[in-house]
Amino acid sequence: MTSSTPKPTVGTVLFPGFELLDVFGPLDFFLILPDLFDFVMLAEKTGSVRSGQGPTALAERALSDCESVDILLVPGGKGTRTEVENPTLLCEIDRLSQTAQYVTTVCTGSALLAKTGQLDHKRATTNKAAWQWVTSQRSEVDWVAKARWVEDGKFFTSSGVSAGMDMALGLVQEIYGEKTAKEVALRAEYKWNNDSNDDPFAEIHGLV
Amino acid sequence: MTSSTPKPTVGTVLFPGFELLDVFGPLDFFLILPDLFDFVMLAEKTGSVRSGQGPTALAERALSDCESVDILLVPGGKGTRTEVENPTLLCEIDRLSQTAQYVTTVCTGSALLAKTGQLDHKRATTNKAAWQWVTSQRSEVDWVAKARWVEDGKFFTSSGVSAGMDMALGLVQEIYGEKTAKEVALRAEYKWNNDSNDDPFAEIHGLV
Repeated sequence: MTSSTPKPTVGTVLFPGFELLDVFGPLDFFLILPDLFDFVMLAEKTGSVRSGQGPTALAERALSDCESVDILLVPGGKGTRTEVENPTLLCEIDRLSQTAQYVTTVCTGSALLAKTGQLDHKRATTNKAAWQWVTSQRSEVDWVAKARWVEDGKFFTSSGVSAGMDMALGLVQEIYGEKTAKEVALRAEYKWNNDSNDDPFAEIHGLV
Repeated sequence: MTSSTPKPTVGTVLFPGFELLDVFGPLDFFLILPDLFDFVMLAEKTGSVRSGQGPTALAERALSDCESVDILLVPGGKGTRTEVENPTLLCEIDRLSQTAQYVTTVCTGSALLAKTGQLDHKRATTNKAAWQWVTSQRSEVDWVAKARWVEDGKFFTSSGVSAGMDMALGLVQEIYGEKTAKEVALRAEYKWNNDSNDDPFAEIHGLV
């Protein structure tokens, strides 16, 4: 990316019961330096969307009014248990994924993206506490149990909750280089878990 | 805490330009297990409050309508540069701090709490990139440069942005014990930086 290139826009999909850190961890890192990314907060309807923990965020644009985004961010959270059966949301995620330059998921957000078929025959991961449920949503995905996050082409999928921040830095590195990713981590005083294969939680949950 | 004890309520102070992760990192951890804490989102006025990064959260109660909270959470963010000169906000932070069981700050949120005088002659820290500015707000504070977070009585102050999550786990440990703090970290698949004295960022910024 050069300074004359428009900043890529990160479109975040909100739905009732999204996980707070899945959304605002990656977004803080994408947006903490002013010149890297733009953002748009999306949901089925504009207005307030209550997280799984309770605090509420605002969606400024309806998914159906959003033609495309450069980077799609699909969070997880307890709401995914309902949303995997919501064809409207899945259809919008599918549509935006087709033209996005990168598609990212955090935690059980992988279940939503997997249900669209976009991850078929791709390597992907998800959180380890809900491993059986997520992976049962789509057997055509090449699920990787031991990974902090997985990159397969334009798809960046991460493990549970806090892993989204490490994945986000991985995407910053992909787009802007390692130096910028480390600058973001420094600004946030974050000790980046930058080895995408280092995942002690897979072992804790008996998956490897 | 026992199961018959009411859950402590975490009151989070929102203001224009708050840092996303300062708020939603700690809140995710406080609220990821259902039985530990309640929450209330506070601001000078109810309604939407735009973060420093842009995404917007909702304040459900005006500070002036909030009699007390058990735990006060004061985030940082670029908005603190303005808010340190806002007597209305500082007065409310001062008032709620007086009766709170615990008072927590993240990043430059320490500047707001320090300006109230509540941290006078207490040990406290803040983020390292804005060290000179924050510490210049109140010389009566015993500022600690090298610390991920600092506990002094009821005051839990943390270093920059992501350090708020480690501090939050420190407070979970204080209230519910180490086992519960580790359970929260596991649920969020978070590698807790649980040594409050381990702070490489103080050295990077030449403060030690």
